Formats: sequence, C-alpha cells, structure tokens
Amino acid sequence: MVSKNQIKLITSLQQKKYRIAHKMFFAEGVKVIQELLNSNLELEHLYTTENDFDAVAAAKKTLVYENDLKKISALTTPNTCLAVFKIPAEKEMLTSGLIVALDSVRDPGNLGTILRLCDWYGVKQLLCSPETVDVYNSKVVQATMGSISRVNVNYVDLNQYLAQTQLPVFGAFMEGVNIYKTSLPPEAIIVMGNEANGISKAIQKTIKNKLTIPRFGSIQKTESLNVATATAIVLSEFRRNN
Amino acid sequence: MVSKNQIKLITSLQQKKYRIAHKMFFAEGVKVIQELLNSNLELEHLYTTENDFDAVAAAKKTLVYENDLKKISALTTPNTCLAVFKIPAEKEMLTSGLIVALDSVRDPGNLGTILRLCDWYGVKQLLCSPETVDVYNSKVVQATMGSISRVNVNYVDLNQYLAQTQLPVFGAFMEGVNIYKTSLPPEAIIVMGNEANGISKAIQKTIKNKLTIPRFGSIQKTESLNVATATAIVLSEFRRNN
Repeated sequence: MVSKNQIKLITSLQQKKYRIAHKMFFAEGVKVIQELLNSNLELEHLYTTENDFDAVAAAKKTLVYENDLKKISALTTPNTCLAVFKIPAEKEMLTSGLIVALDSVRDPGNLGTILRLCDWYGVKQLLCSPETVDVYNSKVVQATMGSISRVNVNYVDLNQYLAQTQLPVFGAFMEGVNIYKTSLPPEAIIVMGNEANGISKAIQKTIKNKLTIPRFGSIQKTESLNVATATAIVLSEFRRNN
Repeated sequence: MVSKNQIKLITSLQQKKYRIAHKMFFAEGVKVIQELLNSNLELEHLYTTENDFDAVAAAKKTLVYENDLKKISALTTPNTCLAVFKIPAEKEMLTSGLIVALDSVRDPGNLGTILRLCDWYGVKQLLCSPETVDVYNSKVVQATMGSISRVNVNYVDLNQYLAQTQLPVFGAFMEGVNIYKTSLPPEAIIVMGNEANGISKAIQKTIKNKLTIPRFGSIQKTESLNVATATAIVLSEFRRNN
C-alpha cells in the first residue's frame, strides 16, 4: 500500500521546487536504483512490485502492486520499482582536471547522457549554468544510468567562474579551430552550449579557444550536431592523446 | 479545418503498418519540415497554424487552428505545423565508402541521432536489421532534423549482408582493440548493437575487427555508453585521419 500522503509527496518531486523543499529525488527501474544503492546516496524509501532488493532493510522498503506504482511513477509505462533518495549537500567544486561546463542545456536526456559521458571519460566535475535543467529531474536521473552518483555537479554563475579560472577554457562552436588538428591539454574547462542557440554571447567572451568538429557531409548542410553527441566527440578528442 | 478522414489517416501514420499501407509518414515543426521540403521528398499535405511556408502551393496546404493540430499531432505539446510526406521507394544500397549498420537499435531518438551523425560525417549509407526501429517513425523523423532525406537507409538481413561484403567489417564492443590505437580504413562497415544487449551473437561471427572505446573513468564501472554517443565517437575516429 502507498498512502495518499506518500503519493502526494512523490508526485510533487517531479517539480524542482518540491525537490528543493523536501531535499529528495526519485529514480525508477532496477538498473538505475541498484547503481544508486551501491553509491553513497542515502535511500529514503523504496517501492517495488518484486522483492529483488534484498540489500534494502524492510523499514525502508514497501512491496506494492503495479497499480500503486502507476500512481507514483513519472513514466507512462511504469517500471517494477521506484526509489526516493535524499539529495546530498552540494560538494565543493573541483578546480583541476578536465571539467565540463554546460551553458543552458535544457533537455533532460542530453544532461543525463552528458553525465554518463563524463563518468566514462573520467571527468569528475560538471558545472551547469543556473538555466541548465536540474540534475535531479527524474528524466535526467533515468538517462544517467547511475553516473549521477559518480560525477560532482555544481550549478554556478558560469560567467563569473570562467572569468577567474586558472584553467584554459575551450568551447564547441560552429566556427572555430578544427578539433582534429589542435593539441589539447589534459586539464581544461570545456564549455558546451544550448541545444538551439549554442554558447551565449556573454559566455563566448570568456572562451579563448574556440573548437569546431568539422563536417564531412554533403554540400547541403546538416544543421548541427546534438549537444550530447558533440560532447562525446570533444571528450574523446581530449582523452585520446592524454 | 481538418476532416475526420484526415485525422484518421494522419493519426494512423503513428503505426508502421499504416505507414507501409499508405506509403506516407509525417513530420512536425518548422525546422524539420523546411529541411524536408528542400529535399527531394514529395509533400502530400501541410497543416499549419501560421502561413510561413510560402513555397508550398495552396492546393497542398491547409491553415488550421491549434485545436485541429492537437488532433493530428503525435506530440504532447503540438508544434505550429505538421506535414505528411510520401515515403520514397527504397534506393539501391551503396556498397562503397563508410557504411554504418545497426543491429536492433530500438530507440527512435537513438536512430534519429545516428542518422544525423551519418549525415555530418558523410556516411551515405545506413543499414538496419529488420528489428531496428522504423526510420519513418515520427520520433525518428523528429530527431534526424532533416538528415533523413540525405542518408540512404535500407533494412536488410545483416547476417547475410555482412557474410558477403567485400568491405572490412568493424564492430563496437565492450571488449576489443582500443579504437584510439588502431589504424582505421576510409572504407568500411561499422556495426553498432542494441541498447541493452549490444551486437547479437549471430552477427558477432561476421565481425573480424572488434573495437572498443576505452573507459577513462573511476574504478566503479560506468555500465556502457549510449549507442548514439558511441557511434559519434567511432565515426569521429574513422574520419579524423581519413
């Protein structure tokens, strides 16, 4: 059984203001939940139709019917389980190594995919402008596949941050230096821009090194690459020789 | 005004069997539709709330209210326009150059993103196993951003095809040769696998060159890369030196 109050609480977590107020977020599906349980995140409560989470103490677990799960799920076709976790306190920003900074990335799937990429390529710090989608949005959590617990995410005033950093700042642009023909350092900040508008004018001023992924296609132009796939290619280039 | 018959026809095109029966598919949004209108695809009919498609003859265009658009749209928040296009006859497969082959890629967003990547990297031929999502699925069309008209897509028995091709066959695996340390030819077939299971056992047998994108991350493992981001990195590697 899921009580009315629980339903109200969990569905409210689909909105950022309630996630902030309650300091909680939720994840759905065995794979993601398992990864988050194995991390240092604190479980608030688990709702599952099957008892396949032996590691979770009974006091923190409720066996529910599919029908109950539908009431709390954010998915059209609910999974077999949903877990509510506490949002941890923001950790201190890392200021060395390879850092990715996102300027107004709005799509939850893109942010989730980028987090997964950071995890793969050993990027330990992700910076997001305040306009970037919330990392605890359930669609972001879903797309990260657990990487959310392994990459440090901070929301910061990018302009201010980039103006004072000691690291070299790179950005992905439609017009820039061919990324395949540039020597890239092992430590840097890589700025990626908004899905429709790219990197904003204000942020552009703080970027000394403008990179471009050259197009090999036909005369008729492909508009641009999706920001997550562009991030994949840029990270690959930074890591392949370092 | 959109007639009941038109609503019935267009909503039926959300299903593959009706797309095949009617030889039609649809796209939504100014940007995608504009790209498709500029291609050699044949417009069946355009429904738009605004008259910003001057190039389209009145006989093929209906100005509609938002309310009408809602009835034919596949989106929760409909765009300002929807266009029905004829599905062109399948073109003959290209057998040279760089070719991408997909083994059971199920997610429409992934297929769309991969098509866009093919277009960017000058891959003119995409092969799909019959289990791969239909390229005229509206979510695929949306994600391609118009690239659908510039890349040749064929659905084939991959096993049979790969057994007889003269091109070298490469595949992306979790265990394989480090892609950053391998010399890659300008002409090849690159096989990418299913989101959850990778490349199927049957297809694996036909792949001589197993590539892997090395993980740079922490001890705790990132499960894998999303198939679209993995395709981005693999295509980038094939093109950067050729």
